Amino acid sequence: MKLRLITSIALIILLQAQPLKAENGYDLWLRYLPVANASLRSQYQHSLSHYFFPVGSDRLAAAKNELISGLTGLIATKPQMAPVAQSGLVIATIDKIGPLKKIVSDSSLKTIGDEGYIIKTVSQAGHLTILVTAKTDLGILYGTFNLLRLLQTGKAIASLNIVEYPKTMYRVLDHWDNPVRTVERGYAGFSIWNWHKLPGYIDPRYIDYARANASVGINGSVLNNVNANIQMLTPAYLAKVKGLADAFRPYGIKVYLSVKFSSPVELGGLKTADPLDADVKKWWQDKVNEIYQYIPDFGGFLVKANSEGQPGPQTYGRSHAEGANMLADALAPHNGIVMWRAFVYDDKVPDDRAKQAYNEFKPLDGKFNKNVIVQVKNGPIDFQPREPFHPLFGALPNTSTMLEVQLTQEYLGFSTHLVYEAPLFKECLNADTYTQGKKSTVARILEGKYNAELITGMAGVANIGTDLNWCGHPFAQANWYCFGRLAWDPEQTASAIADDWLRMTFTNDNRFIATMKQEMLQSRENTVNYMTPLGLHHIMSANGHYGPGPWTDNMSRADWTAVYYHKADAAGIGFDRTRTGSNALAQYSPEVQQYFENLETCPDEYLLWFHHLAWNYKMRSGKTLWDEMVHHYYMGADSVKHMQQVWNSLEAYVDHERFTAVKQLMAIQYEEAVRWRDACVLYFQTFSKQPIPAGYPQPEHDLAYYRALRFPNLPGQGVN
Amino acid sequence: MKLRLITSIALIILLQAQPLKAENGYDLWLRYLPVANASLRSQYQHSLSHYFFPVGSDRLAAAKNELISGLTGLIATKPQMAPVAQSGLVIATIDKIGPLKKIVSDSSLKTIGDEGYIIKTVSQAGHLTILVTAKTDLGILYGTFNLLRLLQTGKAIASLNIVEYPKTMYRVLDHWDNPVRTVERGYAGFSIWNWHKLPGYIDPRYIDYARANASVGINGSVLNNVNANIQMLTPAYLAKVKGLADAFRPYGIKVYLSVKFSSPVELGGLKTADPLDADVKKWWQDKVNEIYQYIPDFGGFLVKANSEGQPGPQTYGRSHAEGANMLADALAPHNGIVMWRAFVYDDKVPDDRAKQAYNEFKPLDGKFNKNVIVQVKNGPIDFQPREPFHPLFGALPNTSTMLEVQLTQEYLGFSTHLVYEAPLFKECLNADTYTQGKKSTVARILEGKYNAELITGMAGVANIGTDLNWCGHPFAQANWYCFGRLAWDPEQTASAIADDWLRMTFTNDNRFIATMKQEMLQSRENTVNYMTPLGLHHIMSANGHYGPGPWTDNMSRADWTAVYYHKADAAGIGFDRTRTGSNALAQYSPEVQQYFENLETCPDEYLLWFHHLAWNYKMRSGKTLWDEMVHHYYMGADSVKHMQQVWNSLEAYVDHERFTAVKQLMAIQYEEAVRWRDACVLYFQTFSKQPIPAGYPQPEHDLAYYRALRFPNLPGQGVN
Repeated sequence: MKLRLITSIALIILLQAQPLKAENGYDLWLRYLPVANASLRSQYQHSLSHYFFPVGSDRLAAAKNELISGLTGLIATKPQMAPVAQSGLVIATIDKIGPLKKIVSDSSLKTIGDEGYIIKTVSQAGHLTILVTAKTDLGILYGTFNLLRLLQTGKAIASLNIVEYPKTMYRVLDHWDNPVRTVERGYAGFSIWNWHKLPGYIDPRYIDYARANASVGINGSVLNNVNANIQMLTPAYLAKVKGLADAFRPYGIKVYLSVKFSSPVELGGLKTADPLDADVKKWWQDKVNEIYQYIPDFGGFLVKANSEGQPGPQTYGRSHAEGANMLADALAPHNGIVMWRAFVYDDKVPDDRAKQAYNEFKPLDGKFNKNVIVQVKNGPIDFQPREPFHPLFGALPNTSTMLEVQLTQEYLGFSTHLVYEAPLFKECLNADTYTQGKKSTVARILEGKYNAELITGMAGVANIGTDLNWCGHPFAQANWYCFGRLAWDPEQTASAIADDWLRMTFTNDNRFIATMKQEMLQSRENTVNYMTPLGLHHIMSANGHYGPGPWTDNMSRADWTAVYYHKADAAGIGFDRTRTGSNALAQYSPEVQQYFENLETCPDEYLLWFHHLAWNYKMRSGKTLWDEMVHHYYMGADSVKHMQQVWNSLEAYVDHERFTAVKQLMAIQYEEAVRWRDACVLYFQTFSKQPIPAGYPQPEHDLAYYRALRFPNLPGQGVN
Repeated sequence: MKLRLITSIALIILLQAQPLKAENGYDLWLRYLPVANASLRSQYQHSLSHYFFPVGSDRLAAAKNELISGLTGLIATKPQMAPVAQSGLVIATIDKIGPLKKIVSDSSLKTIGDEGYIIKTVSQAGHLTILVTAKTDLGILYGTFNLLRLLQTGKAIASLNIVEYPKTMYRVLDHWDNPVRTVERGYAGFSIWNWHKLPGYIDPRYIDYARANASVGINGSVLNNVNANIQMLTPAYLAKVKGLADAFRPYGIKVYLSVKFSSPVELGGLKTADPLDADVKKWWQDKVNEIYQYIPDFGGFLVKANSEGQPGPQTYGRSHAEGANMLADALAPHNGIVMWRAFVYDDKVPDDRAKQAYNEFKPLDGKFNKNVIVQVKNGPIDFQPREPFHPLFGALPNTSTMLEVQLTQEYLGFSTHLVYEAPLFKECLNADTYTQGKKSTVARILEGKYNAELITGMAGVANIGTDLNWCGHPFAQANWYCFGRLAWDPEQTASAIADDWLRMTFTNDNRFIATMKQEMLQSRENTVNYMTPLGLHHIMSANGHYGPGPWTDNMSRADWTAVYYHKADAAGIGFDRTRTGSNALAQYSPEVQQYFENLETCPDEYLLWFHHLAWNYKMRSGKTLWDEMVHHYYMGADSVKHMQQVWNSLEAYVDHERFTAVKQLMAIQYEEAVRWRDACVLYFQTFSKQPIPAGYPQPEHDLAYYRALRFPNLPGQGVN
C-alpha cells in the first residue's frame, strides 16, 4: 500500500513536472499516458494489481506485452502474476480459465466465433475479477486491446459485460505503395515498407503499425499499389513480403498482394494472360504455390483489371468472373481469396461513367467463385467528397461484395484538411438500398445478412506514410481508426468512435471532447461545402487532384475532365441522371430511383448529382440555385474559420507540439478552402451571369488568377 | 527536501517499472533519460534547483526550453527562478551576470568570440554556482547544450572550467534533397523537407533537426541537392525556404541553397549564363536581392559547376573563379557566401581523374573573392572507404577552402553497415600536407592558421531522412554527431567523440562504453577490409553503388568503371600514380610525394592507390600481395562477425527495440561483407590465377553468380 501511495505521488509529481508532454503523434491512440483522474486511477490500480495471463504463442505474447506496456503507462502498475482465483484480471482462452468457465454462457461463446471475445466483471472468492476470454488467441488479442481502451477512455470497470465479435470477415488496408516507396495518392510521406532492408531488417514501425491495426480489428494488409508492379511476385520480393508477414502474424494480420493480370506474360514469358489458357492457369497455380511456401497464411490477391489502362480478362475477350475465378482456383487450396475491384471503366467514354461498374458486374452475379469478393467503392464515381451509394450494393445478391473506402484524402484536401471520414462512410453504410425490402442498408448487405454463403469485408485505402505522425495530420489518424472500428462493426456511430478516438489521442477532459467531437462530426460537411456542394463532383484540378479545377476540359478522355461532370451552361448546372438524362438512376431500386428522381424528395446534398437545374431554380430554402450554391461555398470556408477559433480555445488541453501542428494545418486548410470557394464561384459565375449575393466578400483575385496557378512537385504522384 | 525525496523515490520506482524503455531512436543523443547513478543525480538535483536565465530573444528561449526539458528528464527537476546570487546555475550573456562578470577574464572573453562560451564553477555567497556565459545569445545556446552534455555523460560539475569556441566558421550540412523529396544517395528514407506543406506547416521534425544540429554546433543547412533544381529559386519555393529559415533561426542555423549555374537561362529566359554577361550579373543580383527579402540572414549558395553534366562557367569559356566571383558579388552586400565545389571532372576522360580538381583549381589560387570558399572532398576521387587526403589542401594558400565529407554511406554499405566515420574524417584532418612545413595538417589549414584573411568551414553530406531513427541505422547517428563535433573542433579525437555519443545515446555504463567504443573505432577499417583493402578504390557496383562490382567496365565513361581504377591484369594490380604512371603524386608536397612513392614508406593502406604491383609482390607481413589482399578481405568479413558477437553480449545494456534493430542490421552487414569478399576475391583471382590460401573457406558461389546479381529499386536513386 505504501508503495502504491508513493507511486501515486510520484505520478502526480511527474504529471506536474510535464503537464502536457510534447508529443509528435507517433504513438497514435495507443499513448498509455497516466490516467489523469486520481480516483479512477487508484480504482484501476487496485483492481489490476494481480493477473492471470498464460502465454503459449507469439500472439498471446504480443497481447500480454501490450497489456503490460499499457498498464505501466496508464497506472504505473506492473501487475503480479497470480492464479485465477487470486487475480483481479484474468486474460485467457476459455479452456484455460478453470472454474470461471461456467460463468460464460454457451450462447455467448457461439456468438463470439473465432475472432470475438468476452469481457466480464465477475465475482470470485469475495473480490471482483475482470475476465477477458475468447475461443482463440486472436480473440484474446482483440479483447486485450478493448480492455486497454476501456481504461484509456476512463470507463468504470466494476460491472463490465461485453460480448464482441467482428461483423465482417476481411478488414483490410489497401496500401497503394510502390516498390520505390512512392505512394500513389499518399499524402503522409512515403511508403513505410523499406523494401531494400527487408527481410533482414524489421523496422520498429512495422510492429507499431501492426499493433495499431490489431487495436481496431484490422486483419489484413494489401502491401502494394493496385497499379501493380510485377517485381512484387519475384522470389526476392516474396522473401521480403514474408518478412512483413512474419512480423504481422502475432497481431492477426495477413498480407495480401496486388497483382497485375498480365504477369504471366511480363514475368512468366508466356504469350498470353488469357485466364482460360492452360499455361496461364498453370503459371498462376505455380506462382501461388510458391507464395505459400514463403507465407503459409498468405491472404490472397487484390486485382485492378481492365481499368485505367490496367490489363485484365477483357483484354482476352473474357469476363471479370472468368479472370477472377482463374486466380481464385489457384488460391482456393490454400484458403486464399481474390478481391476483385469493381472500379472499372474502359477506354471508350461512356454516356455516364457512373453506370459502368454496374453494367459490367450486374450480369455476372452468381458467377464468381466462393473465394472471390468484389470490391466496390462507396460511390459510383471515385471517392468524391460526397457521392450517393454505389448501385452495385444489393444488386449482386449472389456475389460476395466488400466496400472500398479511401482513407487517404485524394479528394479531401490531402493531409492538410481536417476531415473526419466516418460520417462519409456511415452515409454509405446507412444508405437503404431497398434491394431486400425496407432497411436493407449497405451495412446489412456487407455483413452478409441476406446470404449466409457469402464472404464479407471492408477495405480502406491507407493514409499511412513515413510522416512522424503516420497520416500527415494529427486528426487524419482518426480515419485509420474509424475505418477499423467500422469494418469491425458497421453499425457503430461516427460519434461514438470519435469520442473514443479523441479520448485516447488527446484527453478525457469532457469540455475538450464535446467541443472537438462536434467539429469532427461537422468537418466532412464543411469540406463538401467549400469543394463540391449540392451534389457537384469531380471538379478538382487535373494537376494531381490538388485544389479546384472546375474549368478542366482538355484531358485525354472526357470523363477525366470536370466539365463532363458539372455540365454547367447558360441554362444551368448538374448531371441529369434521371430518365431524361443518362438514367443512371435506373440502376437503383424503384424506391431509391423515385426518391432521387423526384425533386420534392431528392435531398439538396445530391441535387446536382442527379439533376441539371436552372440557375434560378427555387431551392427549399427559398434561395435560387445560384444563391444557394454561393451560400454553401462561403459557409464551407467560414466553417473552417469557426473550427480554427474552436481549436484556439482548446489550447490548454493539448500539448504544445500537436496544438501548433493542428493550428498550422487549419490555417492552410482555411487558405485552400477560400481558394476552392473563390475559384468555383468565379468559374460558375461565367455561366450563371449572376452576382455574388450581397453580404459575401468578393474573391481576392479574378478567375484568370486561379486558373493560372500551378503547383509543381505535388505529393502522391509517384509512379510504380 | 521531502518533495525531493519523494521525487527521487518516484524516479527509482519508474526506473524499475520500465528498466529499459523501448526507444525508436527518434530522440537521437538528446534523450534526457533519468540519470542512473543515484549519488550523481542527487548532486545534480542539489546544484541545479535554482537558476538565473534571463530570456530576451527566441534564441535564448530555445536554449532555456532545452535546459528545462533536459533537467526535467535527467533529474526530474524543474529549477526555480532566482536572482544571480541565490542561483546554483546562472546562464546569461556576460552583460547580464552582474558581479559574476569580474570572475571572467578579458582574455577568455576574447578567446570565445561571438560563438563561444564559458562554463565555470564559481563560488558565491557560500555556495557553488555553475556559470554559463557568452558574448552572444548563440554562445549561450551552445553553452547550454554543452552543460546538458556534461550531465548526460555523468561528469562531475564541482569544478568546471570550460572555454569553448568553434575552430571553423561555416559548419554546414549539405542535403542532397530534391523538391519531389527523393534524396540522392539518401539511405534513410526520403527528404525531411515537406515542400508541399511549407511554409504553412512546420513539421516538428524541423525543430528537432535544428536542436540536434545546435547541440553539436552545426550552423548551416544547404537544403537542396547540388544537382540543383531551378524550382528552388522560384517565389513559391523561396517562401517555403523562408519557412525553414524562420524555424531554424533560433537555433543559430542559416539556410543555403544549391543553385544551377544556368538558372538565368532556364528560369530567367536569358540567352546565356555567361558570368561576365551584364544581364546575367543583373539577373543574379536581382535574384539574390529577392532571396534576402524573404530571408535577411540567408547564408548563400553552394554550386556544383562543370561537373558530371552540370553547367558552369567553363560552358562559356570562363574560369571557376569568374563564375564563383560573379555570384559572390551578388551575395557580398548581404554577407552571403559562395561555396564552390572542387569536385569537378569534365566530359573528357583524363589520364587520372584524381588529378583533375588540382589541375583546375591550383592555377586559380588567390583569384577568388573573399566570400568564396572552395569546397574540397577529403580525397581526390569520391568519398571512397579510404582515400589519401586531397592534394588541394595546402595547395591554395590564398584561397578559402573547406572540407567536404560524406556522412551518408554511398560507398560504405548504405545504412545497413555500422561504420563510424570519425576515424575516416580524422585521417584526412590529421594528414600532414607539409605545405607550410612539418605539421601543416589539413586540420590546421581548415582552421585558417596560415592565412587569417580566409574564411573557414566544413561541410557534411547529410545522412538524414524520414526514417524514424533519422539516419537508417542507430549507429549512423554517430556520423551526424561526430561531423558537428569535428567541424567545431577538428582536433578532437574520434574516441572522445564516440565516448560522448555512446553515453548520450545508450548508457553511461562503462562496460558497454568501453566495449562498443572499441567496435566503433574499428568499424571503418573493417569496412575498408571487406570492400577496398590496400588502397583499392571505386570497385563498387555501377547499380546504384550497391555491393561489389570490380568487373564494371561498360560505363559511358572510363572513369566511371571499376577497371579504370584497379587496373588488375595478369601482371598485378593497382593504379600507378608515381612518376612512372599518372604522377598524381606530383600534386603533393615533396615530403608527401616521397612518402607515398617510396615502397619502403608507403603504408599498406595506400599501396594500390599509388602503385601497380605484382601479385607476388612481397608485403611487409611477408605474405605475397595476393595472399595479403585475400587475408584483408576475410579479416574484414570476420570482424563483422566479431562485432555481432560483441553486440549480442551487450543485450542487457540496451532497450529491446534498438538492440534488435542493430542486431538485424549487423546480420545484413555480415551477409553483404561476405558478398563483397567473395565477389572481389573471385574476380581478382581471374587475374592472379592463384588459389585462396589455405585456411579460408571457399566462396559459396562462383563469380558468375555474383556478377549476375541484380537489385532493383535501390534507395538513393531519386532524380531531381
